[in-house]
Amino acid sequence: MNITDPFHDRDGDKLREECGIFGVLGARDAAAMAALGLHALQHRGQEAVGITSFDGREFYSRRGIGHVAANFSSGQAIAELPGMMAAGHVRYSTTGGSGLRNVQPLFADLASGGFAIAHNGNISNAMFLKRDLVQKGAIFQSTSDTEVIIHLVATSRYPTLLDRFVDALRLVEGAYSLICMTPEGMIACRDPLGIRPLVMGKLGDAVVFASETVALDVVGAELLREVEPGELIQVSLDGEISSHRPFGDQAGRPCIFEHVYFSRPDSIMGGRSVYQVRKAIGAELAVEAPADADLVIPVPDSGVPAALGYAQQSGLPFELGIIRSHYVGRTFIQPSDGARNLDVKRKHNANRALVEGKRIVLIDDSIVRGTTSLKIVQMMRDAGASEVHMRIASPPTEHSCFYGVDTPERSKLLAARMDVEAMAKFIQADSLAFVSIEGLYRAVGEAQRNKACPQYCDACFSGEYPTRLTDMAEREDQGQLALPVGKVA
Amino acid sequence: MNITDPFHDRDGDKLREECGIFGVLGARDAAAMAALGLHALQHRGQEAVGITSFDGREFYSRRGIGHVAANFSSGQAIAELPGMMAAGHVRYSTTGGSGLRNVQPLFADLASGGFAIAHNGNISNAMFLKRDLVQKGAIFQSTSDTEVIIHLVATSRYPTLLDRFVDALRLVEGAYSLICMTPEGMIACRDPLGIRPLVMGKLGDAVVFASETVALDVVGAELLREVEPGELIQVSLDGEISSHRPFGDQAGRPCIFEHVYFSRPDSIMGGRSVYQVRKAIGAELAVEAPADADLVIPVPDSGVPAALGYAQQSGLPFELGIIRSHYVGRTFIQPSDGARNLDVKRKHNANRALVEGKRIVLIDDSIVRGTTSLKIVQMMRDAGASEVHMRIASPPTEHSCFYGVDTPERSKLLAARMDVEAMAKFIQADSLAFVSIEGLYRAVGEAQRNKACPQYCDACFSGEYPTRLTDMAEREDQGQLALPVGKVA
Amino acid sequence: MNITDPFHDRDGDKLREECGIFGVLGARDAAAMAALGLHALQHRGQEAVGITSFDGREFYSRRGIGHVAANFSSGQAIAELPGMMAAGHVRYSTTGGSGLRNVQPLFADLASGGFAIAHNGNISNAMFLKRDLVQKGAIFQSTSDTEVIIHLVATSRYPTLLDRFVDALRLVEGAYSLICMTPEGMIACRDPLGIRPLVMGKLGDAVVFASETVALDVVGAELLREVEPGELIQVSLDGEISSHRPFGDQAGRPCIFEHVYFSRPDSIMGGRSVYQVRKAIGAELAVEAPADADLVIPVPDSGVPAALGYAQQSGLPFELGIIRSHYVGRTFIQPSDGARNLDVKRKHNANRALVEGKRIVLIDDSIVRGTTSLKIVQMMRDAGASEVHMRIASPPTEHSCFYGVDTPERSKLLAARMDVEAMAKFIQADSLAFVSIEGLYRAVGEAQRNKACPQYCDACFSGEYPTRLTDMAEREDQGQLALPVGKVA
Amino acid sequence: MNITDPFHDRDGDKLREECGIFGVLGARDAAAMAALGLHALQHRGQEAVGITSFDGREFYSRRGIGHVAANFSSGQAIAELPGMMAAGHVRYSTTGGSGLRNVQPLFADLASGGFAIAHNGNISNAMFLKRDLVQKGAIFQSTSDTEVIIHLVATSRYPTLLDRFVDALRLVEGAYSLICMTPEGMIACRDPLGIRPLVMGKLGDAVVFASETVALDVVGAELLREVEPGELIQVSLDGEISSHRPFGDQAGRPCIFEHVYFSRPDSIMGGRSVYQVRKAIGAELAVEAPADADLVIPVPDSGVPAALGYAQQSGLPFELGIIRSHYVGRTFIQPSDGARNLDVKRKHNANRALVEGKRIVLIDDSIVRGTTSLKIVQMMRDAGASEVHMRIASPPTEHSCFYGVDTPERSKLLAARMDVEAMAKFIQADSLAFVSIEGLYRAVGEAQRNKACPQYCDACFSGEYPTRLTDMAEREDQGQLALPVGKVA
Repeated sequence: MNITDPFHDRDGDKLREECGIFGVLGARDAAAMAALGLHALQHRGQEAVGITSFDGREFYSRRGIGHVAANFSSGQAIAELPGMMAAGHVRYSTTGGSGLRNVQPLFADLASGGFAIAHNGNISNAMFLKRDLVQKGAIFQSTSDTEVIIHLVATSRYPTLLDRFVDALRLVEGAYSLICMTPEGMIACRDPLGIRPLVMGKLGDAVVFASETVALDVVGAELLREVEPGELIQVSLDGEISSHRPFGDQAGRPCIFEHVYFSRPDSIMGGRSVYQVRKAIGAELAVEAPADADLVIPVPDSGVPAALGYAQQSGLPFELGIIRSHYVGRTFIQPSDGARNLDVKRKHNANRALVEGKRIVLIDDSIVRGTTSLKIVQMMRDAGASEVHMRIASPPTEHSCFYGVDTPERSKLLAARMDVEAMAKFIQADSLAFVSIEGLYRAVGEAQRNKACPQYCDACFSGEYPTRLTDMAEREDQGQLALPVGKVA
Repeated sequence: MNITDPFHDRDGDKLREECGIFGVLGARDAAAMAALGLHALQHRGQEAVGITSFDGREFYSRRGIGHVAANFSSGQAIAELPGMMAAGHVRYSTTGGSGLRNVQPLFADLASGGFAIAHNGNISNAMFLKRDLVQKGAIFQSTSDTEVIIHLVATSRYPTLLDRFVDALRLVEGAYSLICMTPEGMIACRDPLGIRPLVMGKLGDAVVFASETVALDVVGAELLREVEPGELIQVSLDGEISSHRPFGDQAGRPCIFEHVYFSRPDSIMGGRSVYQVRKAIGAELAVEAPADADLVIPVPDSGVPAALGYAQQSGLPFELGIIRSHYVGRTFIQPSDGARNLDVKRKHNANRALVEGKRIVLIDDSIVRGTTSLKIVQMMRDAGASEVHMRIASPPTEHSCFYGVDTPERSKLLAARMDVEAMAKFIQADSLAFVSIEGLYRAVGEAQRNKACPQYCDACFSGEYPTRLTDMAEREDQGQLALPVGKVA
Repeated sequence: MNITDPFHDRDGDKLREECGIFGVLGARDAAAMAALGLHALQHRGQEAVGITSFDGREFYSRRGIGHVAANFSSGQAIAELPGMMAAGHVRYSTTGGSGLRNVQPLFADLASGGFAIAHNGNISNAMFLKRDLVQKGAIFQSTSDTEVIIHLVATSRYPTLLDRFVDALRLVEGAYSLICMTPEGMIACRDPLGIRPLVMGKLGDAVVFASETVALDVVGAELLREVEPGELIQVSLDGEISSHRPFGDQAGRPCIFEHVYFSRPDSIMGGRSVYQVRKAIGAELAVEAPADADLVIPVPDSGVPAALGYAQQSGLPFELGIIRSHYVGRTFIQPSDGARNLDVKRKHNANRALVEGKRIVLIDDSIVRGTTSLKIVQMMRDAGASEVHMRIASPPTEHSCFYGVDTPERSKLLAARMDVEAMAKFIQADSLAFVSIEGLYRAVGEAQRNKACPQYCDACFSGEYPTRLTDMAEREDQGQLALPVGKVA
Repeated sequence: MNITDPFHDRDGDKLREECGIFGVLGARDAAAMAALGLHALQHRGQEAVGITSFDGREFYSRRGIGHVAANFSSGQAIAELPGMMAAGHVRYSTTGGSGLRNVQPLFADLASGGFAIAHNGNISNAMFLKRDLVQKGAIFQSTSDTEVIIHLVATSRYPTLLDRFVDALRLVEGAYSLICMTPEGMIACRDPLGIRPLVMGKLGDAVVFASETVALDVVGAELLREVEPGELIQVSLDGEISSHRPFGDQAGRPCIFEHVYFSRPDSIMGGRSVYQVRKAIGAELAVEAPADADLVIPVPDSGVPAALGYAQQSGLPFELGIIRSHYVGRTFIQPSDGARNLDVKRKHNANRALVEGKRIVLIDDSIVRGTTSLKIVQMMRDAGASEVHMRIASPPTEHSCFYGVDTPERSKLLAARMDVEAMAKFIQADSLAFVSIEGLYRAVGEAQRNKACPQYCDACFSGEYPTRLTDMAEREDQGQLALPVGKVA
């Protein structure tokens, strides 16, 4: 199969959001709507997709490896998912038959009836909880951290399902935006810090939940509001909506990297246009780190809005100096006679006629391992650029994420291994600058970062993790690799 | 299969180039290089691909439906194609088993040995010639116009293969850029008018031919020059190159639409950067058709360079007001509850936060049927644009192409049915303007269009076809539909 | 896929054994041996197959829809299943992705470590037990009755796994031959009545368990003995064997239909050759129901041994009057011009030259719905047979089986609806006779059927079910269809 | 895919018929009928299948790798083949995409209109003719010998298609039974010696041609007669039948091995029941080569009729001492711990309880390489047989076939390498005997073999080839391997 992956590169040198979720209740073609909505969230997870629907009597599930379009665009696929309530999930996953066990929504027949759950995030004490559940006789069918929640619900002694669900969540630590389905209706909630996003919309009488507003746009729904950090919203089958705050009031700390890179530029997040925030980051960069150059060139496609902001602020012309192929697919066999770096050229090609003899500012969203940046700088030099000034629209990524983002272990993060000057040398740029963390907070609309209680989770930059990391701590006690194990979100 | 098609949209409202070709002689991994080169030409044909190689004794062929990456990225696929000479082809085609017969390179065992041919263009007297050949006992194995050339070669009485090949081409009318392989080496040629492009490069001792320079870039080869209109270049197995001009000297008339839309912006065509020409068209448009507006917005992705040119010339800010999904795939089932135009939203989504309350200039490369333009104007209005001024980076497309471009029949071309004012009304824009044909010629670097003998083939705009159209004329005599029949190129 | 199914016909009019199981401990290529062994048991279940192996540290599983050869003949498939212990299962199942959940061996990670189970039989109180387990928080991943056993083991409070396993079996009623794997070794057992078969063999130092002796033959193993009814045999990883009798001593009642039809004729069952038993049934028939005829003709292939016995006893010549196609595959589109009964001819064709003008005795193993018998009698008449005398090598099948055999509901069994005379009329035979139940007992070597305590389970003929049928009784109380629900075995 | 191959074993030690053909004109569902008919001829060719139909205006073709049921049982497949005339072909072939080029019916658009041809046999001067045609400019699309006929038709100067067709056949030497379709109707013919079979039947107003009568039975048609050797039958679209004898009168020499092995036992060939002929061969064997033994055992399934004949003649009991698995499929990975000959046990298993301590006569149809015979004799001894007497229902196969049967080269035929005594030693039988060639002629109903002019082609036994073998002779002149090259039939 030919998977074209323009935002996040499979072999690539990017952090990757691990999931997108979508739910709808009260629409005649709930599953068709879920398919469209998940398609709009495809950039959040490209390796597997699942949809579960409920027709008032039965739950129906369909899962597949690959893109939404490859699995859910046929009439037959949709016809297998009848009913007016549906929820779905896109994720990164291992491929293959057994991998399907981990594709969400997960589903279980509880004593109270069917229970389906779609999860974006990562539970940081999943291993700890699982060990205890297995001791008591629980049998796990997946290796997903999400399944812990189902078993906690199944074994809770509270009388109502909602109470059992809250009872379960109280034991769970980490990041979770959840969309659940029961025979009574839909439950959507965000963890107390609201680390991963979740929005609520409506389309006629139907209620819609999604990771990003772009999924509402695509199905024609109207944005109502974000699900609040720590909020649990219950929608009954006849459309009655109730909001609960089982964890009390607490300031949220949503992931700031959603603004930098994960979300689509046409989404609205925290009340702000992602596109405008990225332009604002570019403008901050232009002020903080100006460059004496002829052209501003984005690393496509994610660097485009910041590059526009940088260009408009600096007055330098914005130009497409790198052309991205839209047919990326897998790696090709390299001919032995070829010149160096053919593989990066397969994806990006220099617009030589434009770049030749010019001093350029290159704008990218982040640096992870640094290998791609090095190749792109070389490509610009090979195309005749006289100077290459790299500007990055985020602070240095020094720490791994344990909240549902696929990060390399810390020792592979370039910014964890060297300072900015050494990084500039490593990628062979004439100069290198990152936006400051304060500049980033200004771009998202804050006067400044609240040091005592930051408004966002910025742990990947600051190392300040807002929750306990029980499984991590245990593993470090045992001298094991510092990798999250309940790794599926 | 999940075919993502960002430049040209399958269901879409675009003219489509029908083929790309690539050949290499003298490289140790010729087939691997052909695969990479064809991958870079994927935008010229996305439905089928074939590569034929020669190892000094035998010819090897492999063909497939779908993208290059889906068919030729495995080591096994390349290992089936040994040898230091290879040629390949990407094309649009009907899918399915029997469709494979039409996938090029076509191959035949002639009395002189194997003969492989890859063709970009369209032979406008193919039906006429085929009828005569079948009368004499020839059996055709494909429905491709290209096969006519092979049979003409097979039945020619001249003593050498080169003479038989020229003998065949003398009988052929229309557009053809060809790469052929024989046991003696490679032959590349362009029709006397050079309607379709073909360039020549080198990589060490290897000689490379390709439809566009971007394919040279991707394999690491250096551009030597274009194959000239009417030129036939022969490369022997030991690398000796000889140039022939069997048709005498004649001014060429390359396709001007390659500059407007077909070619990749990072290609060099006729000595000019395609990107710079498109920016120049945008600048001409800004002079010829200014607009009182707040923002310049491209219809992504093909409208981007012209929009940059328009913005820089006019001083209006360039902004991404439409975000294109990179996961297009097939059409989804439409939920009955959805709002209108969900399908166009699946591909393009308005950047509402940016557009709301603004007067915008929308830049697109061309209008074919007009249906997409209508939807995009509506999308901008739904997102709150107060005025929408559409500017098109080519003159009105009034005539079908019979030289290897997939055009709807004339009666479906919006510009053949109405004048510009009516078109503006049809697409519901506040204003609509096309660049003039003179502006287009200025943008490609000519002082003016030579009316007596135009420097380019611009038949789709002017109706002035530079060759006879024998099959078309016959069909019109018989009162049949004016469709090209030898339809494969 | 082209599934040829000569013993049991998919669309057919036969009872179907629902499972075959195989296990081996102590062989270097345990999984390869399991694949071969299951292949020899393919007639016991043709729709799905699974193998689980253990390499001393980890369990490995592979499951597939279709035949053993289609799923486990590649070196790669076997290489995915390392270790010296393996167990596998063939079964009938629903096809499709989700169906894979029900393919055995089932596997669970218990607190005591991995636990794999392969089951032939049917648990007749599975629904009752499952309801209770779910109330306590158990989450079922399949719809298989077998999973009940795993949850009972997981939640048992006994200290050792063996005790927990026996504790679980004490709660279970019905038919089960089981092969289980734990990190300590293999456990094989049969229910107290030994309804379904299970034999034990050895090959060098390896211990082998299988449903039938033919699977021992095919892997080159030697038959040691049958696992006794109510016996539980434990084999440790280092090969130590211990036998347990947790249910006390009790006379067994193995399924008599295994001799009539399910087992392969080259298997030894209960110490007797299945082929010889079937010949003996034919001989009994010849004595009980002679016919004045010219030829004895078997309905291929299952009727062949009984027909040989009938022919030898009666002195009539044995001939192949019906030729069976070995390429059955799915149903074809019927041409409208065709004569009647083309579909049965696709599978069976009359040997007209032989049959014409003859009085024939047709021998079949059983009559279920009677539709196939009717067609075959007609085919013989169309081929010119002057008289058709049908003789059946089993008593009338009047009752459904709830012990792991797929039977139609009782109302569809021809023998439940009418007497022998009416059946003869229905199938349009000149005469019809069934072997008596006493004759059947003589053929398997008993002096006579012990009415108080029959030596075999013959419930399908006699209606005397040897266990409680809890789920059935509940359903009948509720007025529901009398179908077994924990239907997977 | 799971290909079960009971008559001819893919890896096996059997001669293989290479093709079966079927045609029907005048039936409303011609393609559905062709699919059923080819299914009944599946034993004549199991690797590829094609059907071409004609609806009065257009020809439609569909080809596939694998069984008829796998390719032509769906309603969609049949719906793609409209019209009242259809012809089809089953064959052995190389698998894979390019292999489809060789799947018949071959089709060409000639000046006279479409021409489809299905061929059973082999043209023994195909290479010679092809070389000449290519010199004149013909382009071959397959490597099939059959395509030579089409080019000869296409380039013939005779005015009518029938004349051109006869003109073509006059140049052709070897074996051919052909079914052709033109816009005027169907042509069926057999080579002057009628080496391969072809029969004619009717079903209502429809005319049917097929390789064997069993295909008529399955579609419900009635046998009219055989197409005579050297006869050409033309059926017009409106059903008018005319018979032509373009080659004059000549005695035919049909293949005698069709009676021994290739044809289905329920076919009538040359007016005789194949089943009865095989029984008669067995009876001849019993007279010519009696054995002092306890049981007669067939090698299933092809040895069964001869074994019945042997048993009835000798008075020894006929018993199934070898049980054949019906799930053969591909070869499995052999476990290293396994006993010898597991692979043959996978297909055949000894019925040990029957064989133990007995002196047996084993009946097989032929010995090719002898490897299978050796394994089966060993299996019988391992099962306890005290003596094994092998009897073969054909004379020793000493010569290769060049008329459409897949034979190993001569040097691999056991009978070409040693005399009967040495063969007995090689296969380790206590005695070995073949039926005499005179005995074989008696069994097919002749008083004796006419030495001057044998009534059958028996070249595989006698070495007397009834036609010139031009390609073979050329190759031997050049010292090349004695293999037929125009190898597809």
